[in-house]
Amino acid sequence: MSHDSKHFHLNAFLMGVGHHEAAWRHPRTEAHRVLDVAHFQELGRIAERGKLDSVFFADGLAVGPRIKHNTQAIFEPVTLLTAIAVATARIGLIATASTSYGDPYNLARKFTSLDHISAGRAGWNIVTSAGADEAANFGIDGIPSHRGRYDRAEEFVDVTLALWDSWEDGAVVLDASSGVFADPTKVHTVDHAGERFRVRGPLNSPRSVQGRPLLVQAGSSESGKEFAAKYAEAVFTAQRTLEQGQEFYRDLKARVVRHGRSADDLKVLPGIVPFIADTRAEAEELERSFTDLISPEYSLRQLSAILGVDLTEHALDAPLPPLPPVDEIQGNKSRYELVKDLAGEGDRTVRELIGLLGGGRGHRTFAGTPDQVADELQTWFEQGAADGFNIMPPYLPGGLDDFVDRVVPILQERGLFRTEYTASTLRGHYGLADPGNRFARTATDVSA
Amino acid sequence: MSHDSKHFHLNAFLMGVGHHEAAWRHPRTEAHRVLDVAHFQELGRIAERGKLDSVFFADGLAVGPRIKHNTQAIFEPVTLLTAIAVATARIGLIATASTSYGDPYNLARKFTSLDHISAGRAGWNIVTSAGADEAANFGIDGIPSHRGRYDRAEEFVDVTLALWDSWEDGAVVLDASSGVFADPTKVHTVDHAGERFRVRGPLNSPRSVQGRPLLVQAGSSESGKEFAAKYAEAVFTAQRTLEQGQEFYRDLKARVVRHGRSADDLKVLPGIVPFIADTRAEAEELERSFTDLISPEYSLRQLSAILGVDLTEHALDAPLPPLPPVDEIQGNKSRYELVKDLAGEGDRTVRELIGLLGGGRGHRTFAGTPDQVADELQTWFEQGAADGFNIMPPYLPGGLDDFVDRVVPILQERGLFRTEYTASTLRGHYGLADPGNRFARTATDVSA
Repeated sequence: MSHDSKHFHLNAFLMGVGHHEAAWRHPRTEAHRVLDVAHFQELGRIAERGKLDSVFFADGLAVGPRIKHNTQAIFEPVTLLTAIAVATARIGLIATASTSYGDPYNLARKFTSLDHISAGRAGWNIVTSAGADEAANFGIDGIPSHRGRYDRAEEFVDVTLALWDSWEDGAVVLDASSGVFADPTKVHTVDHAGERFRVRGPLNSPRSVQGRPLLVQAGSSESGKEFAAKYAEAVFTAQRTLEQGQEFYRDLKARVVRHGRSADDLKVLPGIVPFIADTRAEAEELERSFTDLISPEYSLRQLSAILGVDLTEHALDAPLPPLPPVDEIQGNKSRYELVKDLAGEGDRTVRELIGLLGGGRGHRTFAGTPDQVADELQTWFEQGAADGFNIMPPYLPGGLDDFVDRVVPILQERGLFRTEYTASTLRGHYGLADPGNRFARTATDVSA
Repeated sequence: MSHDSKHFHLNAFLMGVGHHEAAWRHPRTEAHRVLDVAHFQELGRIAERGKLDSVFFADGLAVGPRIKHNTQAIFEPVTLLTAIAVATARIGLIATASTSYGDPYNLARKFTSLDHISAGRAGWNIVTSAGADEAANFGIDGIPSHRGRYDRAEEFVDVTLALWDSWEDGAVVLDASSGVFADPTKVHTVDHAGERFRVRGPLNSPRSVQGRPLLVQAGSSESGKEFAAKYAEAVFTAQRTLEQGQEFYRDLKARVVRHGRSADDLKVLPGIVPFIADTRAEAEELERSFTDLISPEYSLRQLSAILGVDLTEHALDAPLPPLPPVDEIQGNKSRYELVKDLAGEGDRTVRELIGLLGGGRGHRTFAGTPDQVADELQTWFEQGAADGFNIMPPYLPGGLDDFVDRVVPILQERGLFRTEYTASTLRGHYGLADPGNRFARTATDVSA
C-alpha cells in the first residue's frame, strides 16, 4: 500500500477518566476528575509530550438512559479543547459537532475561534446524530432517517466550507496609518441558497493559519463512507481484525480516488483500546479487573440501543435473541453491524458480549506488553490497514501515560513515529496540504 | 434609593484593543493584539487584579459593512472567555449570545460548560440580534420584527432556564463502590412544547456550582426593559446624564418589583468610557487624540445603520437630515433614540456627532483625573442612578490598567468598592442569591 511517509499518525481519543465503561470505578482512576478541567489539560500535555498528532473528544446532544451507571460528559468539547489549547502548544484538537442540529454559521464560527485560539490546531469530527434522545431536544419526534441526516450533513458541510473560505489569506491588513483593517476585496459573501440553509456570509472571523479546521469523520455505513470519501481528511474507524481493517482501508481509499482526490488526502485511523503491562498475562489480568466492574444494568441498556431489541430483561448467560435486519436500524448502522458480527462469533452469550464491548464499545481491545502493542500497530500500518491509529486509553490519565512513555519510544526507535513535531498546525501534523480557497485569485487572475 | 450594600459593582466591557473605534490606530495600542488570545487573557488578569466583578465581551453574527475601517472580532466570546477562565481564578465571565439564532439546548450547554470550566463564573448577555446582516446568515430576509424577536427571546430563555434546572444540586453521586454515577431522581426532563421550541431534556451536563449562569441584558426599548425586568440579574445601559440615569434606574427597578421580584435582584450598570490622565486638560487632550483618528467613511456607515437613513454622501459639517420616526426602526430602538437625542442637543453637525459616538457608540464618555472619575461614579451610585458601572476602556490594555491601578484604589479608600473578593462565583460577586431550582423538593416534600 502507498503511504505519504514512513511515519504513521496517532490521535488520542479521550473520554472522562477512560474509555472503559467501568474506568471511573477502578482503583487506577479518580472518578472526581471527570469534573475537573485541569485533568483534561493534563491529558493534552501528556499527548503533546508523546508528540501525538491530536486529541479528540466525542459528543452527544442528550444524556440518554445511562446517567445512573455511566459517567456523563460534563464539558462541551469545543470549550474543553479551548482550555487545553491554551495549556499546550502543538497538539491538535478535534471535537465532535453535529450537522443535524444547529446552524452552519454558528458552527463555522465556533471552530474558527478554536482554530485562532490554538494557532491552527482545530479539527471537526462531523457527526449526524442518530439518536432519538438527541432529536427530542431539538423538536424532532423519533429517529431522523439515515438518508435525511446525510443529505443535511452534505449541505451543512458545503456551507461551512464556503464560510471558512470567505476570508482569504491576507485579508486582514491591520494598517494603522491608513486606517485599513481589512481588504474588502478579499472578504466574500457565500450567498448559499440551498434546500435547508440560506446563508449570505461572510463569516465574522478571518481565516486561520491552517486555512480551516481539519475535517474528520467516523461513519462506516455506505452513506458514511461516501461522505468521508468526499469530505474527510481523517477517519476514525472501529475494525476488529487485520483483514477487516485492510478491506475497509482499500474500500475507503478507492472511494476517495473515485471522488477525484488523492488517496493520501484522507488518513485512516482504526481505534485500539490498549491494556499495557510488563507481560501479556498481566495485561490480560488488568483488562479483566476492569471488566469485572461493569454494571450489567447499564450495559444491557446500551446493547439494547445499539441492536434495536430490548435486552434489559434478557438472561445474561443466554445467547442473543434474533436481531432485526440492518435496514430497520435508523441509528448507527455500522455499530449495529459490528456488534452483530461480534455476537455471531462462537454464539456468544450476552454476558460475554458485554465484556467485549465494555472496553471500547466495539473498538478493538488489545492486551499486551509495550512491544506487543507496537508490533500490532506496525503490522496494521505496514499491511495496509492504517495510516495511523486512534488510541483509546481504557483509563486516564494512566493509560495515556503508559502509551506515551512505554509504546511511543518503541515506535520512535523503529522509525514509525516522529521524535519531534515538524509542523505547528493540525493539518501539518497529518501531512495534509493547504486546503486552498475557492475565492483566492491566482497570479494570472490578478495580472489579467 | 435602596442598595443591597454600600459597595457598588464593576464590570469591564472589553473589545479588541479598546472601545474607541480608532483605538487600534492609536500609539497607545498595538493593533496586532486583536489577533492574540494572550492579550485577552492579560485583560482578564488585570480586571481580577482590580477585584472587578466581571469582564464582558459583546458579539454579533455578521461582519456588516465595517470591515475595511473597523477591527472585526476574531474570537467567539464563549471560547475566548474559556481561555480567560483557565488563566484566572475569580473574575466573572459574561458573553453575549443571541436568542434569535441557534437553539436553547446548544446555548444552555455552551454556557454551562463555561460555568463548569470557570467554577461558577459564567454569565449570559441575552441579545435578540436586530441586524439584517445577521438575519441573512440564518436564512431570514430583512430585519426580523422587534416584537417577534422578543417573543422568541422569552420562550428561548424559558427553555434555557428549565434546562439549567434539569440537574438538581447533588445529582452527581460518583459512588465508585456502588457504581452509581448520578441519582436519576434528581435529573429531570423539561418537556417543553411551545410555539417555537420543543425540547425534552434533561441537559447533557450537570448543574454548576453557582446554580446557573447569570442573566444579563442590555435592551432599553419598552420590550427590552420589560424583558430585563422579568429575567435579568444585571443590565448594561447607555445613559448620558445623571437625570437620565436616575429616571432609567427608577423605571427599571419599578418594573422589576411589578414582576414580583425584589428591586435588588437586578443590578443596573450604566456604561462609561473613561479617559484618565493627571489633569482634566490632559484627559481631554487624550480623548481628542483618539477622535482625530476616526475614519469618517466608517463612522457614516455606522451612523446610517443606527438612524435608518443613508448618510454616506452627507456633508460632514452640515446638520443631520430629518430622521424617520422611532416606530419605523426595526433595529436597536434605544440606540436610535439615544443618538437622535444626542443629535438634537444644539443642532450638532454630522462631524460633531461622529466624534461624540466614536468613544463608546452612544455610551457616556468622561475625561478626567482618577479622582474626578471616582467622583462621577460615586455621584451616580449615591444619587440613585446605578448599582455599579460598565467600564468601557477606550484603549486596551492601558485604559484598563489605568482604571484598575488609579481609580479602583480611590473607590476602595472611599469604601465604595471591595478590597478583596468575598465570593468565588459571578453570582456571589453581584450579591445575588442562589437562583433556586424548580425541580428541587423541599424537606417537607421529601417527608410527605
